[in-house]
Amino acid sequence: MYEIIDSYKDVNDIKNMSEEEIKNFSDEIRKFLINKVSNTGGHLSSNLGVVELTLALYKVFDFNNDKIIWDVGHQAYVHKILTGRAKNFDTLRKYNGMSGFPKKNESKYDFFETGHSSTSISAAVGMARSRDIKKENHEVIAVIGDGALTGGMAFEALNDIGFNKSKIIVVLNDNGISIAENVGGLSMHLAKLRGDKKYNKLKKEIKSFSRSSIGKTMNKSMKYLKDSIKKILLPSSLFEDMGFKYFGPIDGHNIKELTKILENAKNIDAPVLIHVKTTKGKGYDYAEENPYKFHGIGPFNLENGEVEDKSGKITYSKVFGDTIIDMAREEKNIVAITAAMPDGCALTSYSKEFPDRFFDVGIAEQHAVTMAAGMASTGIKPYFAVYSTFLQRGYDQVLHDVCIQNLPVVFAIDRSGIVGNDGETHQGIFDLSYLSMIPNITIMSPKCTEELKNMLYYSKNFNGPLAIRYPRGGDVFTEGFKVQKEFTFGKWEIITEGENIAIIAVGKMVQFANEAVMKLKEEGINITLINAVFVKPLDYTLLDEIKKHYKVVITVEDNVIAGGFGSYVNQYINSSEISIKNLGYPDEFVPHGDIDTLYKLYKLDSEGIYNKIKEEM
Amino acid sequence: MYEIIDSYKDVNDIKNMSEEEIKNFSDEIRKFLINKVSNTGGHLSSNLGVVELTLALYKVFDFNNDKIIWDVGHQAYVHKILTGRAKNFDTLRKYNGMSGFPKKNESKYDFFETGHSSTSISAAVGMARSRDIKKENHEVIAVIGDGALTGGMAFEALNDIGFNKSKIIVVLNDNGISIAENVGGLSMHLAKLRGDKKYNKLKKEIKSFSRSSIGKTMNKSMKYLKDSIKKILLPSSLFEDMGFKYFGPIDGHNIKELTKILENAKNIDAPVLIHVKTTKGKGYDYAEENPYKFHGIGPFNLENGEVEDKSGKITYSKVFGDTIIDMAREEKNIVAITAAMPDGCALTSYSKEFPDRFFDVGIAEQHAVTMAAGMASTGIKPYFAVYSTFLQRGYDQVLHDVCIQNLPVVFAIDRSGIVGNDGETHQGIFDLSYLSMIPNITIMSPKCTEELKNMLYYSKNFNGPLAIRYPRGGDVFTEGFKVQKEFTFGKWEIITEGENIAIIAVGKMVQFANEAVMKLKEEGINITLINAVFVKPLDYTLLDEIKKHYKVVITVEDNVIAGGFGSYVNQYINSSEISIKNLGYPDEFVPHGDIDTLYKLYKLDSEGIYNKIKEEM
Repeated sequence: MYEIIDSYKDVNDIKNMSEEEIKNFSDEIRKFLINKVSNTGGHLSSNLGVVELTLALYKVFDFNNDKIIWDVGHQAYVHKILTGRAKNFDTLRKYNGMSGFPKKNESKYDFFETGHSSTSISAAVGMARSRDIKKENHEVIAVIGDGALTGGMAFEALNDIGFNKSKIIVVLNDNGISIAENVGGLSMHLAKLRGDKKYNKLKKEIKSFSRSSIGKTMNKSMKYLKDSIKKILLPSSLFEDMGFKYFGPIDGHNIKELTKILENAKNIDAPVLIHVKTTKGKGYDYAEENPYKFHGIGPFNLENGEVEDKSGKITYSKVFGDTIIDMAREEKNIVAITAAMPDGCALTSYSKEFPDRFFDVGIAEQHAVTMAAGMASTGIKPYFAVYSTFLQRGYDQVLHDVCIQNLPVVFAIDRSGIVGNDGETHQGIFDLSYLSMIPNITIMSPKCTEELKNMLYYSKNFNGPLAIRYPRGGDVFTEGFKVQKEFTFGKWEIITEGENIAIIAVGKMVQFANEAVMKLKEEGINITLINAVFVKPLDYTLLDEIKKHYKVVITVEDNVIAGGFGSYVNQYINSSEISIKNLGYPDEFVPHGDIDTLYKLYKLDSEGIYNKIKEEM
Repeated sequence: MYEIIDSYKDVNDIKNMSEEEIKNFSDEIRKFLINKVSNTGGHLSSNLGVVELTLALYKVFDFNNDKIIWDVGHQAYVHKILTGRAKNFDTLRKYNGMSGFPKKNESKYDFFETGHSSTSISAAVGMARSRDIKKENHEVIAVIGDGALTGGMAFEALNDIGFNKSKIIVVLNDNGISIAENVGGLSMHLAKLRGDKKYNKLKKEIKSFSRSSIGKTMNKSMKYLKDSIKKILLPSSLFEDMGFKYFGPIDGHNIKELTKILENAKNIDAPVLIHVKTTKGKGYDYAEENPYKFHGIGPFNLENGEVEDKSGKITYSKVFGDTIIDMAREEKNIVAITAAMPDGCALTSYSKEFPDRFFDVGIAEQHAVTMAAGMASTGIKPYFAVYSTFLQRGYDQVLHDVCIQNLPVVFAIDRSGIVGNDGETHQGIFDLSYLSMIPNITIMSPKCTEELKNMLYYSKNFNGPLAIRYPRGGDVFTEGFKVQKEFTFGKWEIITEGENIAIIAVGKMVQFANEAVMKLKEEGINITLINAVFVKPLDYTLLDEIKKHYKVVITVEDNVIAGGFGSYVNQYINSSEISIKNLGYPDEFVPHGDIDTLYKLYKLDSEGIYNKIKEEM
C-alpha cells in the first residue's frame, strides 16, 4: 500500500533518489500520515508541515554521524518513518506502543528526547561542545518552530552560542502560527523577514543602486558605506545581531532550495540559522484550513475531518473557560493569562469577549507567572491557566515572585495527573509535590467539574497565592455526589462516614475512591471517605479526629507519592498508632498510554483502590 | 556628617535642587555608601554605578504615582536613601535590620520585591497592563542590568511587550560586565551599540551622504532608499527589532543628559528602552578597578579596600573549585559550567587552566541544565556549579531534560541551606524538597569539606543524574570526624552508636548534631548519630535496623521540613511505633541575618539540636 515507505530500508536511501522519486515519496508520506493519524490520533498539522524539510535534512546529512534534535518533538513523525518505524504507527501513543515524541529506546537516531518546548538549541549547543572537546567532526542540527523561539531558554541558548561560535545549525521552522496564533515582537520580526514588501523592495534597490553609475563611481569612503549597508541589510535580522549567520527565508516545501541551503550551511564554520517557511497541515485541506484543530487531535474521519467525540462529557477545561467568563462579566479586575494555550485551556471564548483582559504571552511560563505577580501587586486579579507540566517552567517565579510576596495570583492548573498519550514529558503528576513545599501557597482540587466552578468563585476573594488543580477530560463517577457550593479555608469534606478505615482522596481521585467505597458498602462494610478539598493547608482539626477514631488511613492522589499530599498527611499523623498507606504514582516517570489504561496499571482506578482497602482490612 | 542626606525629607525634594546641588548630593551619596558598606558589607559596586541614574529617575518621575522595579534588587541602595531609609544603613542585611533588597514592608516605594535576576520587565509589564485596565495614568519603569538581560525570562517579557505595545520604560543599565564578565551574543551587540567605531563612522557617513550633492539629487526611489537606510541604522538595535523605541547609548553619569532622555521617554506612547552606560564601582578606586570583588562584599578597610577574612576557613566552594581542577587534569571528558557565577562557585582558576572545558553561559540556568544534558548524552561529563536558589530556575530542565533521560549530569549545588545576609530570595532551603521528588535523581551531601572532595571523585563514574549539595562557608565542628573516602550507593555512615535515640542528619548538620551528641556523651547519655550521605535514595537497610532498635528518630536537615529529607524518612518508617521528629525550617520564608543567628533562631545549631534531644528523652 505504501510502496516507497515499505521499501525504505536505510536512513541514507534518500541520497540515491531522483527529484521525482522524492516528490512521490513526500506525497506518499503525507498520505500515510493522514491515514495513520486519522486512526490513532496524534500531532498531524506540524508533521504535514515538515515532510520536505525532513527529507531534505536526510538528503544532505548522514545521521550515522551527524546529530539532530527535534524541538518539542511532536513533529518527528517523518523522522520516525525514515528511521525504520513506519511499521509502528498503528500503535502510536498507545501504552507499550510507539511514542509520539523522540525516544532513545526506540531508535539510535533519536539523539535527544524532547517534549517541552524550546530545549533543542541548548541540547545542540551541548552536543556541539562535546564534539569540539572530543575533536570529532560532525554536524549538530536543531529544528525549532517559531513558537518555541518565544521560550526564554531558546534565547539563552542563542545568546550563548552566538558569542562562543561553536558550529551548530538551527533550522527555524516558521509556520507563522506555532501551536496557536503567534505572539510577540519576535513573530513580528519574523513576519518582516518573511515577506515585508518594503523590505524586499529595499533589498532590490540596494542591489540596483550598487550596480548603478552612482554606485559604481562612489569614492572610497562611499564604497565603504555601500558595503556596510549591504552587510547590514542583506541579510539583516535579530539573529545576525546575536552572532548567527542567517539564511532565509526559504520555501520549506521546495526540496531543491532546502538542499542547496543546507549544503551551504555545512561549509560554514560558525553558528548558522536557516529560516524556513512551512505551511502547517500542508497537503490535507482540513488541516491546512484549521491547523490548531489538527495540532494534537484524536482519531478523526478522513473524509470530512470531523472528530468523533465519544465521551460527550463536559471537561474541566471547559468549566474553567465558561466560569471565568461569567466571573469576568461581574468583576472588572479579573484577567486571564495563557502561555500559548488558549485553546487547550479553553480560553478562546473568553479572549473574544474580553480582549483587553486576556494575555497570551507566548511559550513563556516564567514571564507569565511574574507578569501575573506584577498585576496582582496592583489590585488586578490574574488567573494563569496552565498545564501542570508546563508550570514546572515557572517554578522559581511561583516561589520567588508570587509566594515570597504572598500575592493573590490564581494558578488554574489544567492537565494535572495523568494526561495520557503524550507520556512521560507531559504527565502532570508532580505539581502537588513541587507546590506543597512552597510557603504561603494554598492548593485546592475539586472532586468534580461542578465543584471546580464553585472553587473558582471562591478564589475571587482569596487573598494569597492559590493553585486550583484539575485533570484532563471530564468526570467519570459522580452519581450521588453532593456538590460543595461554599468552602472554608483548610476544611475538608466528609463524603461518607464509616469506621476503622478513612480514605482521604484528592480531586478526581475522590470519584474512584467513592466507587470503591460504594462497592464495599454493598458488601456491608462502611468506611469513611474524605474529600481533601485543600491539599494545602491540611485540615488539621479533622486529622486530629481521624487520629482518635481510625486504625487505617489511605491517601489517594493523582500525583507522585514522593513529596505529595500523602507525605504531608504522614508527617502530621506521624507517631500515632495509625497505619497509613499512600496511593499515588511511584518514584518513576509514567509512560504514554490512554488515561484509563494508566489508572489501571498504577492501581488508581476504582478497582485498584478497592483492592488496596481490602488488603488493609 | 551627611548634610544633604540628613536633610532630604521627601522623595520629590530633588526636583527643587539645582544642578550643582545634585552634583554635591551624588558626591555625598557615594561617600555615604562607601562608608556604610565598608562597615556592614553589602553590594557596593553596582550601587556606586547607579547614583546619577537613580537621582535622574527621581528628578523626572514622581513615585507617588509612577512605579519603578529594580531588577535583581541589590542596586537599590540609592533608592533606599531617597525614600527615607538612610538612617537604617547601619543595620543593612542584619537580622531584623534593613534588607539589601527592595521589601514592601520597608517602604511604599518598594513596589515589587526582587532578588533573582531578570524579573523586572515581566513585573513591569504586569503593572502596566493593570494600569491600562484600570485606566490609570502613570509610568512603569524597569531598571535592568545588561547581565540580567541574558536571563531568558527578560527576553520573554521583551517579546511580549514589544508586540502588545503597552507603555513601559526599560532602563538598561549597561556596565559591560554585570556580576562577572558578560557573555553572549547580546553583550557583543550591546558593545557594538555602545561604541563600535566602524558603526559610529557609518552613522556619520550616512548623514554626510544624505547631505551630499549625490544624496540631494537622488531620484524618488533613491530617496526612499536613503530614508530606509536612515531608519534602519539610526538607531538600529535588537530592541527595535523586538518592537521597542530605542534610545542610547547615553552616559549614565551625566544627570542632565539622563534627565532629558527620561523626559522624552515619558511622552512616547509605546514601549521604550533606554540604554545607559554606567561604570560599576564609580567613585571608589578600589571598586572601579575590581568591581567583582566589590560586587557583594563583606566589611572592608576603607583605606586600602582590603577585606578582613576573619574565618580563614577553607570554604566548600573552594574545595569544589580545587577538586574539579584535579579531576579535570586526570579526566579529559570533564567540563564545568556556570551561569554567571565563576567567582562565587570558585571556578575562576579552573576556567584559566581549562578554557576549552569551561562554559559560562550567562544568567541562564535553564540553558545551562539542558546544555549539560546535551553534553552528557554524548559522553562528556558535565559539572554544573550553581547556587541552590538559582537552580530553581532550571527546575523543569532538571526534571524534563536530565532526569527523564537519566543522564549523568552532576549538579554541584553551592549555597545550600541558609545563605544569610541576602535573605528570603536567596536562601537555599528548598533544594532537598524540589529535587527528592524527581525520579532517577540521586542526592548526596558531604558532612564536611574533605568529604565533598571525596564525593566529587565518587561522582566521576556515577552513571545518572547526581546532585551534591553543600553549604556556604566552611566547616564549624569537625574534630574527631572520620572522613569517608569511599561511598557505596545508598549507604549511610554511622558516626556514633548509642541507644534509644537515633539522629539522622544531612550534610553540615551532622557537625551540629555531633556537637550535641558529644555533649550528651559527657552527661553519660549515648545516642546514635548517622550521616545521611545519600539523601536519595535513603539507606533502607539501615532504616529497617533503626525501626527494630530505636524508639525515637530525629532527622536534621538544612532545608524546609515540607517535602524534605525527613518527610521521606517518615514515609518509610511509617506505621511502626517509633516517634519521629523532623528538624529543619518551618513552612515560611527565612529572612536575612547572619548564618549563625539564623541557625540559632531556627534551633538548628548544636544547642537547638541538644535541646530537642533532651525534650524527646
